Amino acid sequence: MASIRDVAKQAGVGVGTVSRALNGTGYVSPDTKKKIEKAAEKLGYTPNELARNLYRNRTGIVGVMVPDLDHPFFSCLAKHIEMELYRQGYKTMICNTIGISDREKDYLDMLDRNIVDGIITAAHSLDEEEYLKRKKPIVSVDREFGPGIPLIGSDHAMGGRMAAELLLKNGCRKVLQISGVAPGVAAQERHSVFKEVMQKQGVEILNMVMDWNVFDWNAHYTGMEKFLEEHPDIDGVFGGDMAAIACMNAVLQKGIRVPEDIKIIGFDGMDVTRMVYPRLTAVRQNVQLLAELCVNTLLDLVEERKGVPHRQVLDVEMQFGGTTL
Amino acid sequence: MASIRDVAKQAGVGVGTVSRALNGTGYVSPDTKKKIEKAAEKLGYTPNELARNLYRNRTGIVGVMVPDLDHPFFSCLAKHIEMELYRQGYKTMICNTIGISDREKDYLDMLDRNIVDGIITAAHSLDEEEYLKRKKPIVSVDREFGPGIPLIGSDHAMGGRMAAELLLKNGCRKVLQISGVAPGVAAQERHSVFKEVMQKQGVEILNMVMDWNVFDWNAHYTGMEKFLEEHPDIDGVFGGDMAAIACMNAVLQKGIRVPEDIKIIGFDGMDVTRMVYPRLTAVRQNVQLLAELCVNTLLDLVEERKGVPHRQVLDVEMQFGGTTL
Repeated sequence: MASIRDVAKQAGVGVGTVSRALNGTGYVSPDTKKKIEKAAEKLGYTPNELARNLYRNRTGIVGVMVPDLDHPFFSCLAKHIEMELYRQGYKTMICNTIGISDREKDYLDMLDRNIVDGIITAAHSLDEEEYLKRKKPIVSVDREFGPGIPLIGSDHAMGGRMAAELLLKNGCRKVLQISGVAPGVAAQERHSVFKEVMQKQGVEILNMVMDWNVFDWNAHYTGMEKFLEEHPDIDGVFGGDMAAIACMNAVLQKGIRVPEDIKIIGFDGMDVTRMVYPRLTAVRQNVQLLAELCVNTLLDLVEERKGVPHRQVLDVEMQFGGTTL
Repeated sequence: MASIRDVAKQAGVGVGTVSRALNGTGYVSPDTKKKIEKAAEKLGYTPNELARNLYRNRTGIVGVMVPDLDHPFFSCLAKHIEMELYRQGYKTMICNTIGISDREKDYLDMLDRNIVDGIITAAHSLDEEEYLKRKKPIVSVDREFGPGIPLIGSDHAMGGRMAAELLLKNGCRKVLQISGVAPGVAAQERHSVFKEVMQKQGVEILNMVMDWNVFDWNAHYTGMEKFLEEHPDIDGVFGGDMAAIACMNAVLQKGIRVPEDIKIIGFDGMDVTRMVYPRLTAVRQNVQLLAELCVNTLLDLVEERKGVPHRQVLDVEMQFGGTTL
C-alpha cells in the first residue's frame, strides 16, 4: 500500500504539504493540490483513518445502545439516529443490551478506551453510578441522571393524561393498564398520571406489569391470554404498542369486539399500529425529532459547544385509529 | 491521563512487561501481574485502543449494511448479527443505505480506510464492480457476486414453490403477486418460481411491482388500495410480509373476508405476521441462523481461516396462520 511519503515523492513536495492538502488543515496552492491529488490517485493512496484518529484522539464514531433493535420503537429510533449522525459526519456503533449480561457496562467502557466519541443510550438496566463516572459525553433517552447527562424524551405524563381522558370520554369503567418500563425511567410517569386521572373519576384500574426487559411478542401475547381468562369484564386497555396489540389479538381471538366491547390505546404510535385491523389508537411519539435532538445534543458535547440544554421534553399527540370510539 | 510508562514505574517493572500483562501477549508471573494490575487501577490507566488497533491493523469492528433498519426483516437480521458479532469479540457499525444517496459506496470505502475489518451487506443498490474491487472481506445476503464474495441466503425458490402450492390447494384461480426486490437479488427467484408453478396450472397472475427501495408502510397501503379498485376479483395474494399485511388491511377495510374471499401468504414470517388478526400465513426465513452464518463466514475471512464456503442457502418453512384455509 502506498504511504504518504510515496505520494510526496511522486508529487515532488514535502510530506507536510501532502498532509495539509489531503486533510484540509492548512493552505496549499491550487496547482500543488492538483499535483498531490493526481499522485494520490495514481498510487491508490488512501489515508489511514486509524492513524489519523489517533492523532486527533477522536474516532468519529458514536455508540448507540438500545435494549432490543428488533422492537418497533427502538428500530425506528436507531434508524433515525444513524441517519442524523451520518449527515453530521459520524458513524454509528450499535448495541442491543438485552439478552447478554454486562453489555451496557462493556459499551460504556468503550468511552474510556477511545473507541467511541460519545454514547446515546436508551438502555437503562445499569446503575446510575456506572453512567455518572464516565468522562466522555453521554446523552440519555427518557432516564434522568442529573445535570451531567442531558435527557431527551417524550412527555410521558402528557401521554398518560391524554389516554386516560380518551378512555373516560369513551365511557370506560374498568381498565387494564400494562406497564413494563425499567424503574427510574421517565416512561413510568405515563402510568402514574394515567392511574391518577382515572381513579379521580372512580374508574377501577387493574395493572399488569411485564418484566422490564421483556420485548418479545410471545411473552406479551400469552400474558394477555391468561389475564383475559381471569378478567373478561374489562372495557378499556392502555399499554405500549406491542402490549396493546397483543391484547387486541387475544381479545379478537375470543370473539370480543373492538372497540364496541373493549377500547384499546397504545403508546409509541409506530408503523405497526397502522398494520393491524382495526388500526390502533395510540399516543404517538415524534421519534424522528427525538433522534435528531439526541444527535445534536451529543455532538454539542463532543465538539465542546457551550450552552447544551440539560433536559428536552417533546410533546406527544393522539393518533386516532379504530380501537376507540 | 496515565500512560503505560507511568504504570511500569509505579509497579517497578519494564514497559514491555506491562504490555504483556495487560494484553495477555506473553508470560508474566502471577505476582508481577497483580502488582501491575494494582498500579493500573491506582493510576486509572486504560489502554488506548486506537493505538493498539493501529499496531494490529485491525479494528475489531464489522460494518453491517441494510436498506432500512426500521423494516421488520432487517431489524431482526441486524439484531442477531450484532449479538453474534459481540459474542465473537467484534463490534457492529450499522448503516441504513436507503434515503441518502451514495452511502453504500461510502461504507465500502471504510474497508479501504481501515475503519472496519469487513462488511456484511444486505443492501444491494450499487454496481457489482464497486463490491468486487475491495480487498477486504465482504459477505453478501441474497445477492450473488461470484466466488470472491460469499453469499448467505434463504432458499427463495423453495419459498415461491411452497406459496404457490398452498394457494393452488386453496383453489385460487386469479392471484396477485407483489414484488419489489432489487434486480439481481436471489429473492427474485421466489417470484419467478411462484409464477411458473401457478401458470402451469392455468392460474392467472397479476403483478404489482413496488420500487425496489420502497420500504414504508404508507406506500404499500396506498398502492394496494388502488390495485383493489381495479382488480376487486382476485382470490389470492403472495408478497413480502409488509406488502401482504398492507393488502390484508386494505381488503378488510373494503369488507372483503380473509381467508373466505381472498387467501394471503407473506414472505419472511417476522413477528409482525403474528400481530395481525387473522395471523398471516407466511413463508418463514430462519433469520437468526442467517445472521449467525453471515458472522461466522465473515470472521473466517477476517481471521484468514481456510475453506470458507462460497454459497450457503437455508431452507424456509411454511408458518400457517389464519389467512389461508
